[in-house]
Amino acid sequence: MANSYISQAVIKRLPRYMRFLSEIRAEGIERISSRELSERMNVTASQIRQDLNHFGGFGQQGYGYNVQNLIEEIGKILGLDQAHNLIVVGAGNLGRALAGYSNFESRGLYIRALFDIQPEGTVSEVRGLKVYGMDELPVFLKEHNIDIAVLTIPKEHVREVAQLLYDLGIRGFWNFAHIDLALPPDAVVENVHLSESLMQLTYYMKHPNEVAE
Amino acid sequence: MANSYISQAVIKRLPRYMRFLSEIRAEGIERISSRELSERMNVTASQIRQDLNHFGGFGQQGYGYNVQNLIEEIGKILGLDQAHNLIVVGAGNLGRALAGYSNFESRGLYIRALFDIQPEGTVSEVRGLKVYGMDELPVFLKEHNIDIAVLTIPKEHVREVAQLLYDLGIRGFWNFAHIDLALPPDAVVENVHLSESLMQLTYYMKHPNEVAE
Repeated sequence: MANSYISQAVIKRLPRYMRFLSEIRAEGIERISSRELSERMNVTASQIRQDLNHFGGFGQQGYGYNVQNLIEEIGKILGLDQAHNLIVVGAGNLGRALAGYSNFESRGLYIRALFDIQPEGTVSEVRGLKVYGMDELPVFLKEHNIDIAVLTIPKEHVREVAQLLYDLGIRGFWNFAHIDLALPPDAVVENVHLSESLMQLTYYMKHPNEVAE
Repeated sequence: MANSYISQAVIKRLPRYMRFLSEIRAEGIERISSRELSERMNVTASQIRQDLNHFGGFGQQGYGYNVQNLIEEIGKILGLDQAHNLIVVGAGNLGRALAGYSNFESRGLYIRALFDIQPEGTVSEVRGLKVYGMDELPVFLKEHNIDIAVLTIPKEHVREVAQLLYDLGIRGFWNFAHIDLALPPDAVVENVHLSESLMQLTYYMKHPNEVAE
């Protein structure tokens, strides 16, 4: 990397670059200029040049960016150069929806199983994935190399379950419960607080002249 | 408001203030100091004072903030001082999960119905909500005062459906499809690109010494 420090704003934009570059690659395009990329992504070309310059000289003056290179380099930065194995804890509608997303796998993110307190009350197969009982967690985690838990359980139980998963060795948590977790500092937590996103929408509906990022 | 301009970073933090202040109110606490609030929210007291000062003098030196006042003022800014009526388009697992969230209603956000191309193939009731066919959209929207559409349909169809909804008068779009919409400028769109959130997690797992917001 050209710079060891990358701002959070840039990091938040990287997955978006990944998405557009993957679409561009799927169209068979091998090189793209910052101007063309900016038109597709609806951001300025100078923003793109500035962002991508953080990762060293992938763009060549007059030649544009090598799409495949850029995908690989951004993938490395995002930790996608190694596969990740996930379990979904909570096999309700949301857990099933996430387990059904096939596009995670194209990024090397593999959901391996679902867990629920009532495995017998649920359909036992989601896209070929099994729904296990919570009591089967310790053995499953011993036998499988899982590094991320997706938490789609009610907020009343999520801290207790997150602690259990942490004690069993999980360090990555993708939390959909509407509460902050309280885990040791080596746990990495990404929260998806959906109602907060909905409130961003109502904010911009009330203030139509302000532009969202 | 003390200032007419509020930065996006502050706006993104407002729903989080709402969440913590609502919890605090539920505990029967009427006033809270920035120090106490900062301990609960795990941000600095000066950050809190700075953020809340945007909305004028709610905090009194030595007395702290009036919790109820603050909730109401932040609610006004977020457009929650009026009720919003939503429909969910796409009654798959994700659409059903969202329709099942009761905490939206406590914010004045009411999901009124679901729509799907295959209403007959789905269970017709989600939390008392009906799943209608897409052909019933025009009549339903004429008879109900809906201002937000939640889009949980495959990305192949979402632009076409969003345009249809726009033509029928919807201006607020909460989009879960993994594609940017292409709507006229008076449409307000909030995207939830879940795989982008997951890539933030893998980024911070790879770079454990950087701290997420």
